[in-house]
Amino acid sequence: MKGNCVVAQSGGPTAVINASACGVIQTALKHSDTFSAVYGAHNGILGVLHEDLFDLGQEDPAVIEGLKRTPSAGLGSCRYKLKDLRKDRTDYERIVEVFKTHNIRYFFYCGGNDSMDTADKVSRLAGDMKYEMAAIGVPKTIDNDLAETDHCPGYGSVAKYVATAVMEAGKDTEALYTADTCTVMEVMGRNVGWIAAATAVAQRNEEDAPHLIYLPEISFSLDRFIQDVRETLKRIGRCVVIAGEGLRNEKGYIAEQGGEFSQDAFGHKQLGGVADFLQRVIEKEVGVKCRSNKLGTCQRNAMHFASLTDRDEAYECGVAAVQAALAGESLKMVTLVRLGNGPADYACTTGLASLSAVANGEKKVPREFINAAGNHVTQAMKDYVMPLMRGEVPIEIGSDGLPHYVRLRRHTLQQRTAQRVGNS
Amino acid sequence: MKGNCVVAQSGGPTAVINASACGVIQTALKHSDTFSAVYGAHNGILGVLHEDLFDLGQEDPAVIEGLKRTPSAGLGSCRYKLKDLRKDRTDYERIVEVFKTHNIRYFFYCGGNDSMDTADKVSRLAGDMKYEMAAIGVPKTIDNDLAETDHCPGYGSVAKYVATAVMEAGKDTEALYTADTCTVMEVMGRNVGWIAAATAVAQRNEEDAPHLIYLPEISFSLDRFIQDVRETLKRIGRCVVIAGEGLRNEKGYIAEQGGEFSQDAFGHKQLGGVADFLQRVIEKEVGVKCRSNKLGTCQRNAMHFASLTDRDEAYECGVAAVQAALAGESLKMVTLVRLGNGPADYACTTGLASLSAVANGEKKVPREFINAAGNHVTQAMKDYVMPLMRGEVPIEIGSDGLPHYVRLRRHTLQQRTAQRVGNS
Repeated sequence: MKGNCVVAQSGGPTAVINASACGVIQTALKHSDTFSAVYGAHNGILGVLHEDLFDLGQEDPAVIEGLKRTPSAGLGSCRYKLKDLRKDRTDYERIVEVFKTHNIRYFFYCGGNDSMDTADKVSRLAGDMKYEMAAIGVPKTIDNDLAETDHCPGYGSVAKYVATAVMEAGKDTEALYTADTCTVMEVMGRNVGWIAAATAVAQRNEEDAPHLIYLPEISFSLDRFIQDVRETLKRIGRCVVIAGEGLRNEKGYIAEQGGEFSQDAFGHKQLGGVADFLQRVIEKEVGVKCRSNKLGTCQRNAMHFASLTDRDEAYECGVAAVQAALAGESLKMVTLVRLGNGPADYACTTGLASLSAVANGEKKVPREFINAAGNHVTQAMKDYVMPLMRGEVPIEIGSDGLPHYVRLRRHTLQQRTAQRVGNS
Repeated sequence: MKGNCVVAQSGGPTAVINASACGVIQTALKHSDTFSAVYGAHNGILGVLHEDLFDLGQEDPAVIEGLKRTPSAGLGSCRYKLKDLRKDRTDYERIVEVFKTHNIRYFFYCGGNDSMDTADKVSRLAGDMKYEMAAIGVPKTIDNDLAETDHCPGYGSVAKYVATAVMEAGKDTEALYTADTCTVMEVMGRNVGWIAAATAVAQRNEEDAPHLIYLPEISFSLDRFIQDVRETLKRIGRCVVIAGEGLRNEKGYIAEQGGEFSQDAFGHKQLGGVADFLQRVIEKEVGVKCRSNKLGTCQRNAMHFASLTDRDEAYECGVAAVQAALAGESLKMVTLVRLGNGPADYACTTGLASLSAVANGEKKVPREFINAAGNHVTQAMKDYVMPLMRGEVPIEIGSDGLPHYVRLRRHTLQQRTAQRVGNS
């Protein structure tokens, strides 16, 4: 099937989602027999809905190549949730209309399970509307929660950077333990603790941070936490805690409950992140000074210390998506398939899974990757993540000492449909 | 004067304070004709007060060399404030007692202005007590607020890392501006805005982050801030704000005031950092979603992306301290003296300033480095900081993809004085 293709990015950015886009773009541009033109959608599916498309063939090839060393979503991303297809077909029909108008026959969507759901439904609706097209998903998420794939591009880089950051913050606590005795560091992962768990690799021996790791997979007990911190202080005189942002118990997120620990001296309720919350708990209950760090969005864009393994796999996922399309596949997401038996002989290849299986799945940290006490991880977890963090992405650095990242020029296509009215 | 020397580190760690210690240790070990032994004090002046000293000559030379690529304070640091000499000489007399007991004739103290004050007073009191000794200060502070020196070791590295982090967080906001339209990033610097100001280098053109920078040097107006954010959103559709942690107005720190912006939906008072505070202001007043990042202690230990210029200067300061002592100097701090006329022909050498001048000074960001509106910096500021951020410190990385930092073994000296009772 000959026609145009479009690539889009969705959800929270990662250090290497642009590498995946680069893999798609460079491979598709080489196959002009199939792909007449290679388009980008500005800000994910919003770019399609708004017919805000641009011609990637007109970009400087050096800029396309530069995507491999540029963090975040260079095409633009979005958090737009399509309406429920069973209740309202408007969004989907609009997407197919724009695809038809621009003869887009291939849709490459880099994202998480919501994006795979979108790609799946768009493609199925197009089929119902007798418009022939193929949809291939490219996995992306720092959260590492996608089903059907051994791991997700983006995860290895955030793991490497956050583990390094806690190693460094741990050195700070080690030096200043007589004053700043504890440190709590909040890491991303609202529903799953893969990032929190990965930081364990920084702990090469018992003295090293992180000393305690809490994951959303384990119901959080404030009493046990206080006991854990006290015990750690007794043993090594300081304590560095990693807290997944989504720590919860049977009542919900702990940072939103808190009771007395969410109150100031006047009994007023405090809000804020989990690190601030646990900092207050430690200062009040354990009685030592505690610091809190929250890398926030810095953690998912840290190309300055990203994993080369992750970046190369992200690129390969993009390449494999186009190859799958060329082979006539559709309604599939590229997966990463681990080869080898342990961290020493790690290798990886790509596979394919159905979009709907990915859309409806979620992969949590398995119980056997978490220690019995629920406050750290096992060697199996370290062995799983360690190979994904290896190598450093070479970046360009300017005379000002800072990285040079690229920005696409976005040669926008002329709009040919009536403009859509409504939410952005 | 032949005798032993002691090196100590104080205050908040930096990425390169160990490089300074390494410069002292390696140079002193080469001059055994003057320095019979080279000791370290565990946790700064606390190590002297507690007679907790160790013999650096017994460390593996490879570990000493490894300090050059290891962040934080490898000897241990402290925040202990000596009692006022005019009111209570106990601490000072105890220090001189320990020095006498171990025949310590040279005191090399790496720290900020409080540490320079300590070194100055200890040395003067020793003179009063007819104990001959020399005290040489080695500048250290990410805050860059020391008088008498062009800049401070530690500053270039935090500047490089934080500027890179805001560049990367800026890419996140750029990709997701339809959902997460603003980002506020809090950086260290309670009294001075040097770190906040340095992030401006990340803004190579108007589109780039950071779009707004607020320093403690400029009295903070909430109304102007809201106006600035609105204006930036109008102009480029997103806004990344850098906020110095010590932002204040005539009433004090703004994060501790807040009025309606420090209240939750029920009118309860909220506490927290300046980033969380400004995030609430933006969401409530400007009406767009805002994220907040706080690198916390990660920012001052980021050896994984530290400035080679800074590291090399830090080492040279350590070397120069020992050379000054060998030349018979005392009561001096090593300074950095800038040569050349601009960023292109930057060069630097060391000088000496009196400890008391440093102890009693504080260097704020000069008004001409800040723009007229007080919400960004001028080219003069960028030209000042840019050369300090150049180059990357080569680090060792293990097969797990993470840095290898060293830890001293600390061959502790036998205690020979009666143990001191009292506060740690």
